[in-house]
Amino acid sequence: MGGEESLAMTGGDGQYSYARNSNPQKEAADRAKAMLIGAVSENLDIVHGSPTSNTFGIADLGCSVGPNTFIAMNNIIEAVEHKYQAQGHLEFQVFFNDRVSNDFNTLFINLPPNRKYFAAAVPGSFYGRLFPKASLNFIFSSFALQWLSKLPQVVCDLNSPSCNKGRILYANAPKEVGEAYSAQYAEDMEKFLGARAQELVSGGLMALLIPGRVNGTLPAQSSLGPRFQPLESCLVDMTNEGLLSKDKLDSFNLPIYSPSSEELEKLIEKTGCFDIARVEEMHRNNIPLLTMQEFRAGLEGIIKTHFGSEILDELFDRYSKKIAGRPPLNTCGGIGIALFVLLKRKH
Amino acid sequence: MGGEESLAMTGGDGQYSYARNSNPQKEAADRAKAMLIGAVSENLDIVHGSPTSNTFGIADLGCSVGPNTFIAMNNIIEAVEHKYQAQGHLEFQVFFNDRVSNDFNTLFINLPPNRKYFAAAVPGSFYGRLFPKASLNFIFSSFALQWLSKLPQVVCDLNSPSCNKGRILYANAPKEVGEAYSAQYAEDMEKFLGARAQELVSGGLMALLIPGRVNGTLPAQSSLGPRFQPLESCLVDMTNEGLLSKDKLDSFNLPIYSPSSEELEKLIEKTGCFDIARVEEMHRNNIPLLTMQEFRAGLEGIIKTHFGSEILDELFDRYSKKIAGRPPLNTCGGIGIALFVLLKRKH
Repeated sequence: MGGEESLAMTGGDGQYSYARNSNPQKEAADRAKAMLIGAVSENLDIVHGSPTSNTFGIADLGCSVGPNTFIAMNNIIEAVEHKYQAQGHLEFQVFFNDRVSNDFNTLFINLPPNRKYFAAAVPGSFYGRLFPKASLNFIFSSFALQWLSKLPQVVCDLNSPSCNKGRILYANAPKEVGEAYSAQYAEDMEKFLGARAQELVSGGLMALLIPGRVNGTLPAQSSLGPRFQPLESCLVDMTNEGLLSKDKLDSFNLPIYSPSSEELEKLIEKTGCFDIARVEEMHRNNIPLLTMQEFRAGLEGIIKTHFGSEILDELFDRYSKKIAGRPPLNTCGGIGIALFVLLKRKH
Repeated sequence: MGGEESLAMTGGDGQYSYARNSNPQKEAADRAKAMLIGAVSENLDIVHGSPTSNTFGIADLGCSVGPNTFIAMNNIIEAVEHKYQAQGHLEFQVFFNDRVSNDFNTLFINLPPNRKYFAAAVPGSFYGRLFPKASLNFIFSSFALQWLSKLPQVVCDLNSPSCNKGRILYANAPKEVGEAYSAQYAEDMEKFLGARAQELVSGGLMALLIPGRVNGTLPAQSSLGPRFQPLESCLVDMTNEGLLSKDKLDSFNLPIYSPSSEELEKLIEKTGCFDIARVEEMHRNNIPLLTMQEFRAGLEGIIKTHFGSEILDELFDRYSKKIAGRPPLNTCGGIGIALFVLLKRKH
């Protein structure tokens, strides 16, 4: 796992934990619920690997510690039960996956007591195999696939012409930077889709919620840009004031990428293993900027690893002041697009 | 789970952690390796639930945090692979089970990097269902089934004639105390075996390592007695010196039980779901008394819950002095018997 380990969400249930600061993710998940139910109802055929097995396996990839994952798993199970009312003897097994450094102890303590499934946790990167062949009926992943397996090397290399100096993401960067991110994303998705193709049963479904950008835009116009701009601005300020070294800033980048739906569909078609049952863009207006607490929950680990923990309080204090009074973001600028993608494993 | 939660082994990898203090368990597991290999070789028929599934599911119930569980899982997989060399396409999935309060984060961090299996963790008491029907091919449990799901009520009730006053276990206690423990054990094993019978495929194996006592002896002659006698003696000393209240001591008991093989076989036959493929008594001489560190790893949680954390350092310091210079225990007194039991799920 190595460098990936700094990417897990902040554990526990303290002030800055993911458990207490994942409202934007929850809102999007709520809005996806209707789509999820429709998806199951229209597309799911329960293909039993065996006439004697009545296990329905579900995985949530990049689940963090809850509560969002519990809500999503419940939605999926309700949808499956609704479609297969007659088959009252189905047993559900849910596999909660996240990186090894995720706080699974907290996840386990928070498991809903009256859940209708057998719970299991699977640690490891979803860019490799996590499950036996054809062992899952449904794969779900919500706002986790924006995390790349690693940064494209060149954007952090101070001696490369593609070094992404003075920025922390490819938004508003020269074309080469966006291309390096795109190439890393393509490589990662090939691994992701290849692994999932093996793990899903024939006819099994995979539902993905992904932050995306509008078709026809370049990566540099990424919808993620405005969300991370205030953080970038704080880091630049601190560098200008001599609190951080210029090299440290220049070599820091976020391993995050948001594709357009066309870009993603091409990558899916390339694998040849999935039918694309549905791709939808979810627009939204008046998205509040991420609060300081929400930012800490998602980014504390990666910032600490690069800059050291001593800058954290100062940085997030500045962040908090920087966003104070700013208006919410709007989708008319290509911001805040989420992609809902439903794939079906070919027979 | 409730009261059971205090029973998990001490987590992390600090001085008193189970990870660093589980040598006696490891020695016994090493000695069981040969038996395990023989057991698989003579008794395992791979009954695929489905012609398309090549997953071989293994569970370790009461796994703690490693490293012993990793060694045991490796032994089982080697034995299965050895028997089924021709079927090189088997994929193994290992489910590590322990109570919700077990330190699964530590378990995950310590997973062997070159393991030949997909790893998953399943939290919860093994006295209830943990897995879907017929989803496992092999169930293993090593030195975990001595933990009862709860204490028999009467032995802690200061007003009951069966109250186990002045002792912390049924060893050397009046007959009624041993009977109350036996009855609780029978109730627990009925639940354990009933759940496992559903989870194992037909023809699947279950290998159990259990601390036992010699056939024909009463519970009061339990082989566990001498192991816990020094701890009991320290608690009695502290009560006599006024450091603990007499009621606290009188109402404290360990939820631990060791059956004879005859007793266990009767309980297994009663369920009607398993063929007993093998029962062996493993004797051993010169068993070192548990060290202070080993004791803390196993019992710190339960002692803290009953007496409060403030007594821990004093108690274990006394324990350390109490056992200093004592000779190791010998099996000729019925001490240190371990039972190796191999069951096969009936078709």
